[in-house]
Amino acid sequence: MTSLDKITVGFIGLGLMGKPMARNLQKAGAEMIIYNRTQGVAAELAKEGMSATTSPLEVVDRADIVILMLADTPAVDAVLLGEFGVIEGVNENTLVIDMGTTLATEAKRFAQAVAARGGQMVDAPVSGGEIGAVDGKLTIMAGGDDAAISRAQPLFDVMGAKTTHVGPAGSGQVAKAANQVIVGLTIGAVSEALALAKHSGVDPARVREALQGGFADSRILEVHGARMIDGNFKPGGKCTTQRKDMDQALTLAAGINLNLPATALSRDLYDQAIEKGLGDLDHSGLFKLIDGQV
Amino acid sequence: MTSLDKITVGFIGLGLMGKPMARNLQKAGAEMIIYNRTQGVAAELAKEGMSATTSPLEVVDRADIVILMLADTPAVDAVLLGEFGVIEGVNENTLVIDMGTTLATEAKRFAQAVAARGGQMVDAPVSGGEIGAVDGKLTIMAGGDDAAISRAQPLFDVMGAKTTHVGPAGSGQVAKAANQVIVGLTIGAVSEALALAKHSGVDPARVREALQGGFADSRILEVHGARMIDGNFKPGGKCTTQRKDMDQALTLAAGINLNLPATALSRDLYDQAIEKGLGDLDHSGLFKLIDGQV
Repeated sequence: MTSLDKITVGFIGLGLMGKPMARNLQKAGAEMIIYNRTQGVAAELAKEGMSATTSPLEVVDRADIVILMLADTPAVDAVLLGEFGVIEGVNENTLVIDMGTTLATEAKRFAQAVAARGGQMVDAPVSGGEIGAVDGKLTIMAGGDDAAISRAQPLFDVMGAKTTHVGPAGSGQVAKAANQVIVGLTIGAVSEALALAKHSGVDPARVREALQGGFADSRILEVHGARMIDGNFKPGGKCTTQRKDMDQALTLAAGINLNLPATALSRDLYDQAIEKGLGDLDHSGLFKLIDGQV
Repeated sequence: MTSLDKITVGFIGLGLMGKPMARNLQKAGAEMIIYNRTQGVAAELAKEGMSATTSPLEVVDRADIVILMLADTPAVDAVLLGEFGVIEGVNENTLVIDMGTTLATEAKRFAQAVAARGGQMVDAPVSGGEIGAVDGKLTIMAGGDDAAISRAQPLFDVMGAKTTHVGPAGSGQVAKAANQVIVGLTIGAVSEALALAKHSGVDPARVREALQGGFADSRILEVHGARMIDGNFKPGGKCTTQRKDMDQALTLAAGINLNLPATALSRDLYDQAIEKGLGDLDHSGLFKLIDGQV
């Protein structure tokens, strides 16, 4: 594993994903300076040797590299540009890495704000879920300048199995939006296919097996198809998160006058699923709506 | 390779898929008795040593095992139950194997008609396209009795890379319907994702690369995603065929009061694509509609 000895890393946002990512950086040797809105989590990690702070500004004052792993775009706006925000402490040594799923157009605006103070910013959203975060096997989609990405690379190598430099600032978020569109629609596809089998009196497990290795094969059929058959909808990525990400992809598309009819339908189906109480299930829980279980 | 020496096989329907499948059976040693509505193809294969006939009935009179590889359900009805149809020659030694994509409820009815005359029938639709047919690497989804499937297995081993016995008669067609639902919807998903990248000014090839190996990965992203990026829509499976298969899946679903909203939308999108002149392109040509090229 890459050694991060003597590197100080700031980490803001220590939720389901952020916590194991921060732990992996610490394990690799980094000194961790952390901030979390909910103080309980920060206290827990402080016991493990991380250094808790009282504001995003304090993080950037103590660490040149600051990772953001926040719930949504407004949260990034608040942490970066709000009161006692990161931006106030940005200087020419600062590298801000946003690893959450943020609206691509806003990601460009955030990068410009950081650049205006002489710092660098990279958008580097991830795929792979909580398991990928724990195992340090995330797929990382990075947008930004070559120099900034190179500086972030040793950290990416610790947190992820694969990093692709997609293009300039904002490109990583566009790739993530594309990722979420495919994930959501493929979950819908596998849901309709397995429901069709089940309601036709044919064993969906046999159908899944028959389809594996052919043109219908996908990671979603493998992982989420098994969840649908087993009725195991413990998250993983929640329906509410999937819905939010698809809404963000549609906002991006609307801004460039692009019509995404299947993505729009899928968001509506996730809305129905959430209304029927499935919001906190894994995103593969959409199957319960299609299958008529709710 | 399995040897089919001294086995006589009847083959009806020698189109894009049927022709290479029949050739592979002949290469494995089978004596081929063939019938095709269009006589030109039969004449071509007669030159290669296959024995051409003048009706489906003549095929079953000369071969105990008869494979059907026809364009749609009405064609199976006509060849099996029509004038000079296969059914008239069925006896207790007959095994009819329908390898085309047929409506599952009709597949059950056809199997019953063959059983009523003492014969066996298996539905064994395939996935893998023309390349899979040529290479003998099809994925075969089989429905029928154990004894009938066992008897067909040596032929499946020649034509396919993998056979799954899904369940009783009709089950293979249900699995194929599920397959086509997933293929069509995943093509739509990859189309919307890559169009989103392209219209956002981000290289779709980089986005595809970033997504490979993650949760968004699929055979469709690999094969058809590359087609979309290269603008190579030479079929492969045509848009018209994909549209027909999804319509058939929706007919199956309607018969059991199951609502498949994404499949219904996808059929409508394929309808639009066909109206705009994309019908004869590969089914990944749906990308041109989503991308606003037509």
